[in-house]
Amino acid sequence: MLPENPSEEIMSLAPWRSPLGKALHLNRSLANVKYLQLATVRSNGHPANRTVVWRGFREDTNELKLITDFRSQKIADIYENPWGEACWYFSRTREQFRLHGKLLLITEETADEALQTLRVQTWKDLSLGARAQFSWAEPGLPRDFHKPFRMELPTPEEILPDFCLLLFDPIAVDHLQLRGDPQFRTKYDRSPGGKWNTIAVNP
Amino acid sequence: MLPENPSEEIMSLAPWRSPLGKALHLNRSLANVKYLQLATVRSNGHPANRTVVWRGFREDTNELKLITDFRSQKIADIYENPWGEACWYFSRTREQFRLHGKLLLITEETADEALQTLRVQTWKDLSLGARAQFSWAEPGLPRDFHKPFRMELPTPEEILPDFCLLLFDPIAVDHLQLRGDPQFRTKYDRSPGGKWNTIAVNP
Repeated sequence: MLPENPSEEIMSLAPWRSPLGKALHLNRSLANVKYLQLATVRSNGHPANRTVVWRGFREDTNELKLITDFRSQKIADIYENPWGEACWYFSRTREQFRLHGKLLLITEETADEALQTLRVQTWKDLSLGARAQFSWAEPGLPRDFHKPFRMELPTPEEILPDFCLLLFDPIAVDHLQLRGDPQFRTKYDRSPGGKWNTIAVNP
Repeated sequence: MLPENPSEEIMSLAPWRSPLGKALHLNRSLANVKYLQLATVRSNGHPANRTVVWRGFREDTNELKLITDFRSQKIADIYENPWGEACWYFSRTREQFRLHGKLLLITEETADEALQTLRVQTWKDLSLGARAQFSWAEPGLPRDFHKPFRMELPTPEEILPDFCLLLFDPIAVDHLQLRGDPQFRTKYDRSPGGKWNTIAVNP
């Protein structure tokens, strides 16, 4: 049976998804095409910034899936201040997306069933190497080179307790295209009602 | 005449300068090797993040030279909260430097003569294209496609009032090398006395 409104699913996509999808496609030959820099605010009011890997969009939403380790510094920061800004630069097409939005942390303790299912699925989708990182010694602590890191690799079924899913829900996107004369810049803003507004601005 | 202590200049280089210099060299074939993402905090407590271009180090210091437009949003943010964290990812060697430190803005109004001289020199060192940006219409305002952007390019001698130099002085650096088994991570921290401490930590 056909859905009553076949365009419904397409309608839910924010207008910045199309240029972002195009950038991902045109830059797909780059090894780091899925790497973006996520800024958050520390408890002392200073900014923090690190490279994270985009793990796709949460189905039927505009939320980016990211992952993190419960033992990392950013966990406490995000609980206190859940706002983030991601900067995603595509070097082949020379364009930048700045995504501003709210972060939602899904840990082993998260009660919501749908979110917990998504956490488990994201774990299963990880590469061997990505899963292995969650079995390593506590990040940021002094390294003991005499102690080898755990050797057996965690399986897709054995979800490690420190594995967290991080959902990032943008409310504003700033797209800058350095190619162009003199450049193009587009701003997308989500109104409290959920509607996206698009405007061309000066670069 | 020889300086009394010939090693003095070398001594002033922070220990993270050597691995950063090496990364810059090994990744020099990348068009975006000098692009890094600078996070700051907005007046509403949310993070901001954008790509900036590294313009070299200020002579005899560990301060990174960046530039910005006085009309950009980050000016007000930096006056209120001068802390920044830069994330610099080198895709060829797969390593990341996170630099945490203080930002100092040098505008047309800055009275300090040495800093003003540095601002003028940085302007002169810019490419034609980089200088031209400071003659464009106000960044972030709705674009008027009927109004052409200023056509004459500013000369090295005609320093435009909105041109600002931004000095970034790191007090902590976190260097992560994704290549390695299982990866290498080194933290550098500057003590209040100015001495740098280096420690290998878990990735």
